[in-house]
Amino acid sequence: MKEDNILIIGAGLCGTLLAIRLAQRGLRVKLYEKRPDMRRHAISAGRSINLALSKRGLLALQRVGLEEQVLQACIPMRGRMVHPLGGEAFFSPYSGRPQDYINSVSRGGLNSLLLDEAEALGIPIYFHTACLEVDLQQAEARFENRQTGRQWSERGQVIIGADGAGSAVRRSLMAHSPDLLFNYSQHFLRHGYKELSILPHEQKGWRIEQHALHIWPRDQFMIIALPNLDGSFTVTMFHPFEGEMGFRQLNTPERLRQFFEQYFPELIALMPHYREEFFQNPTGSLGTIKCFPWQAYGRVLIMGDAAHAIVPFYGQGMNAAFEDVRVFDDLLEECGPKWEEVFTRFEVSRAPNTDAIADLALDNFIEMRDRVDDEDFIRKRRLERWLEQQFPDYYSKYSLVTFRPDLPYREAMRLGRRQDELLLELCSQQAPEEMDLQAVHAQLMQLQQA
Amino acid sequence: MKEDNILIIGAGLCGTLLAIRLAQRGLRVKLYEKRPDMRRHAISAGRSINLALSKRGLLALQRVGLEEQVLQACIPMRGRMVHPLGGEAFFSPYSGRPQDYINSVSRGGLNSLLLDEAEALGIPIYFHTACLEVDLQQAEARFENRQTGRQWSERGQVIIGADGAGSAVRRSLMAHSPDLLFNYSQHFLRHGYKELSILPHEQKGWRIEQHALHIWPRDQFMIIALPNLDGSFTVTMFHPFEGEMGFRQLNTPERLRQFFEQYFPELIALMPHYREEFFQNPTGSLGTIKCFPWQAYGRVLIMGDAAHAIVPFYGQGMNAAFEDVRVFDDLLEECGPKWEEVFTRFEVSRAPNTDAIADLALDNFIEMRDRVDDEDFIRKRRLERWLEQQFPDYYSKYSLVTFRPDLPYREAMRLGRRQDELLLELCSQQAPEEMDLQAVHAQLMQLQQA
Repeated sequence: MKEDNILIIGAGLCGTLLAIRLAQRGLRVKLYEKRPDMRRHAISAGRSINLALSKRGLLALQRVGLEEQVLQACIPMRGRMVHPLGGEAFFSPYSGRPQDYINSVSRGGLNSLLLDEAEALGIPIYFHTACLEVDLQQAEARFENRQTGRQWSERGQVIIGADGAGSAVRRSLMAHSPDLLFNYSQHFLRHGYKELSILPHEQKGWRIEQHALHIWPRDQFMIIALPNLDGSFTVTMFHPFEGEMGFRQLNTPERLRQFFEQYFPELIALMPHYREEFFQNPTGSLGTIKCFPWQAYGRVLIMGDAAHAIVPFYGQGMNAAFEDVRVFDDLLEECGPKWEEVFTRFEVSRAPNTDAIADLALDNFIEMRDRVDDEDFIRKRRLERWLEQQFPDYYSKYSLVTFRPDLPYREAMRLGRRQDELLLELCSQQAPEEMDLQAVHAQLMQLQQA
Repeated sequence: MKEDNILIIGAGLCGTLLAIRLAQRGLRVKLYEKRPDMRRHAISAGRSINLALSKRGLLALQRVGLEEQVLQACIPMRGRMVHPLGGEAFFSPYSGRPQDYINSVSRGGLNSLLLDEAEALGIPIYFHTACLEVDLQQAEARFENRQTGRQWSERGQVIIGADGAGSAVRRSLMAHSPDLLFNYSQHFLRHGYKELSILPHEQKGWRIEQHALHIWPRDQFMIIALPNLDGSFTVTMFHPFEGEMGFRQLNTPERLRQFFEQYFPELIALMPHYREEFFQNPTGSLGTIKCFPWQAYGRVLIMGDAAHAIVPFYGQGMNAAFEDVRVFDDLLEECGPKWEEVFTRFEVSRAPNTDAIADLALDNFIEMRDRVDDEDFIRKRRLERWLEQQFPDYYSKYSLVTFRPDLPYREAMRLGRRQDELLLELCSQQAPEEMDLQAVHAQLMQLQQA
């Protein structure tokens, strides 16, 4: 019997989008998810509640015809609202171009929309169905139904693991490390995160500026907030585990109160319930996973977080996973379903780019918690904005990563870092107000050629 | 019931030595090994047959009173015998000091000697007993008897995993990665290895120089040979998997013959049976594993290859594992069995040093396959030898790593690399014969202060 199904493990954001696109191409797809159907059960995936959707993600959604529908459920965030300790809050736009902004979107809402679309296309989705392991050469997955305990195996034409940072499919690659020469690294930050919330104002909706990503930078730690459609904000503390004021020491309501009064006094008024949430909600960890190869024998592939989990500080985790789907689709268009060729070209072209966004995301943690309220940095952002307003061919590093999906992450990183060096050097010498912007622009264009 | 046993997983070189030392301290130890008893069954552990034992390993063996007995089963190797393609073989001593040499020893012989000693001390050793997983907080291991299939669990005062590069105990740490912030990396070389052999001469014993480690350097690949007591040599090809002449292409006797005739003609005479061995013996891969932490909750620890697998090119894998045991024993002496303190101090002091020898071993691959027959390199080795002969306080990088167990690997690496830079610079300017050795020595001593 011919195994003509493509088995996709994981019906999260990446796996479901991939399933939709492959079905649109007329391929037979089956989708497996270990969790219950999130449209019918309130579940915490243990991950952030809302996400920043930007151009790379939107381009992939456009590919499946869902961009407009998704944008209707988004809140545009046009820049960072920075809340220095003891100072006035100020707004720092993401771009000098009004059309360039990022979008706060609910993870659950977006995932549900994708699941609806997948079902509308007739894709069978098996919930409560955990993949235990994969026979790589046979493209055969062993499954367990989490409700009944029943175990069985299924073969596919190929198997694609989009089963997240804790991927079972990747674990099967790992189990064959010496044969595959499977390189792998996982690295955790010494910081963790905890989610809190600002509730909607009873009459007026959002209690603070709606169209911004809010940051309370405090050097070694920070709090951020993203708006939700219902008027609430999802608030996230990024905070060290250890040390005098680390998570482990904030272990009584009194210590927590003292800490918030010292560092986040204005947030106490916005979140009167912060202590209950703090002690109720789990503390998460933040890790980066890189690996290579992403495929075995042309039969099994991983993508999305399963292949490249990153820290959230560039808001690119979901965007990178969606971009995986678009790049994969481009290769299918070019090669047809010659899987070994598609898989090999995919991993070779894609891994250097996801390695790059992993590194950029780590850099951005320092920028967000320590630099956004720094004088030189503010100058540089002002200069970048003016340049973007005047010169259509200039994009800041942030804009290259976030608003230029035509540019692979690795190119965005290289050019962006060169630009940053130049601009920081210039800003250390004079204020943007005194600069000849034409001359600065000419220097920047030279970097593009280099 | 008090759990007073220390459970050691893995009765290889590291685990057995550790068991011996802990028993000598009066602690109750149980030792578990998934393989059969190597003293009764001929088994291939899939690893190299002989090893280079040097000062760090000997110091640990001295600690348990076995140094002399082990040395009797060793063949001293006083330097490298380098066999350039088409040129005369030449001998390059490891040190300018006659007392500094390394020792070729049989892995199986040494391991058997340690097992005998462990049994003589009354340590129970359970063969055929695989550890499946460990409950970290309870220090409870799940075991399976590989002959009967029976599974059971046992608790220990603590559990120490010395179960090698594929460690099951490390896998249990890995399964709790987010809680432990368990950093991990595995990286494979694009080169693999294959073992061949030179058989003893019927009358005269060793067919080539007995007291040397032989190298046939060929730039992108190499063959080495280490002497055995029975007159044979264990020969190892280190060779790329891919490429025109890679392992995967050497897939017919005819291609192999052409390859050997071109690159290793003199080895054909020494190994008339090389083709049979080549196609019979497996091709192994070469990886580096680093991780941190090495312990969880003061209840479970990993050491040896389980914590830090390295490539074999510095001949330090076993030596580093034995040094683990010595350093661990020093901490036990200092702290007593306060396990959390001992484990924490052990991992913190030890990991930077095993990271260093991992990096040095990778560097040495390039040196061995590509540089040992290079003119500048030969000059530098000559200079180093003269310096070591004249100045008792000078040690080359190789000697610092190999003959100075008082110096942690990380210090040996730092000082050794600074020395190398200086000496290579000097050798690029003039021949050692023209140098003022006193002046060179003075410069080297300044590096020690830096």
